Amino acid sequence: MSAAAAAKPILYSYFRSSCSWRVRIALALKGIAYDQVPVNLLKDGGQQFSAEFKALNPMQQVPALKIDGITLSQSLAIIHYLEETRPNPKLLPQGPKKRAQVRMISDHIVSGIQPLQNLSILQRMGEKKMEWAQQCITSGFQALEQILQHTAGRYCVGDEVSMADLCLVPQVFNAERYKVDLSPYPTITRINKALLELEAFKASHPSRQPDTPAELRA
Amino acid sequence: MSAAAAAKPILYSYFRSSCSWRVRIALALKGIAYDQVPVNLLKDGGQQFSAEFKALNPMQQVPALKIDGITLSQSLAIIHYLEETRPNPKLLPQGPKKRAQVRMISDHIVSGIQPLQNLSILQRMGEKKMEWAQQCITSGFQALEQILQHTAGRYCVGDEVSMADLCLVPQVFNAERYKVDLSPYPTITRINKALLELEAFKASHPSRQPDTPAELRA
Repeated sequence: MSAAAAAKPILYSYFRSSCSWRVRIALALKGIAYDQVPVNLLKDGGQQFSAEFKALNPMQQVPALKIDGITLSQSLAIIHYLEETRPNPKLLPQGPKKRAQVRMISDHIVSGIQPLQNLSILQRMGEKKMEWAQQCITSGFQALEQILQHTAGRYCVGDEVSMADLCLVPQVFNAERYKVDLSPYPTITRINKALLELEAFKASHPSRQPDTPAELRA
Repeated sequence: MSAAAAAKPILYSYFRSSCSWRVRIALALKGIAYDQVPVNLLKDGGQQFSAEFKALNPMQQVPALKIDGITLSQSLAIIHYLEETRPNPKLLPQGPKKRAQVRMISDHIVSGIQPLQNLSILQRMGEKKMEWAQQCITSGFQALEQILQHTAGRYCVGDEVSMADLCLVPQVFNAERYKVDLSPYPTITRINKALLELEAFKASHPSRQPDTPAELRA
């Protein structure tokens, strides 16, 4: 193993970023020790826009993960990489049809809900920020609730934790933050609660990160 | 093989939807024969919102693909399923690091650019529609150009067509539609041109679909 490959991975993260949280859960579930470098998306006009961070990740977004001598970005690309290089425990089920269910749910959240309510969009929405976020999440959760009624067991797809669950919990956290009424989504709510009882979801929670402000700490 | 598995796949698609085009390219490259059912995103207030289509895909979006007895949605989930069940020709390279590059570029386009300029968002933007679409695409392309300078060969990652290329070409098509100045992106432009010379990209082009209006046909 080369020196680069043996080095401890570094996660560039922001405590409240839902995309960062997805990756923190994956790292925790797979038992991968890592150092965390906070990137404050609000301070200094957004530290992700600094020349230093742009050199690391041209997308100017968190998360970014330095691992095995490379720097990765995009949460699902990072999780797929971890899955292919550290396969245990598995975050994708056996069998292409089940895997497709996991990816459909993941992509629905990651491409269909989160980008429409992320910080950079909301900043452009001004006064309508809250209403906009609620609309995007509500519309996405209506579809998600219906899908989960077909795929869920204890978790999003069957009874094993999968990539879909890593996407679900941070999105529900955002929904609560934007005061979305979750009562029409009993399946989402039930699964979210079950997942939050797991140690990997607790340890990676936004309320327990190195950059969590004191007033938001659990 | 069951009757369902043996049936010809059905793609629910809209000629101008960039997400639909990604899947049409994958089907063409892999030589999978399929029937196409057009879903007009503008007609009747959006045919994707009909009760009939909602029963098929609760996300109320194209593309959706009926295949092997199941119905899939989300373009990258569909492409991953095709890759796992019909692996030739490959759309993901060997080796986790190269695969991560392909997925980073794909996710950057699919989660980071396209959702911000898709039809449902633009419809809410009113007069600022064009300016908004241009901003989102420009900001995404600046990052993409920089990334491609490190990953590209003849195509987005090395010299083989990959999932990333299936995302690139439809996004450049959207950029042209919204009159984005492409001169700052020579790598994007070069790769797009090379890809458009391939038969799979030509046959799947929005100008050549069953639902392409006569005045837009190639």
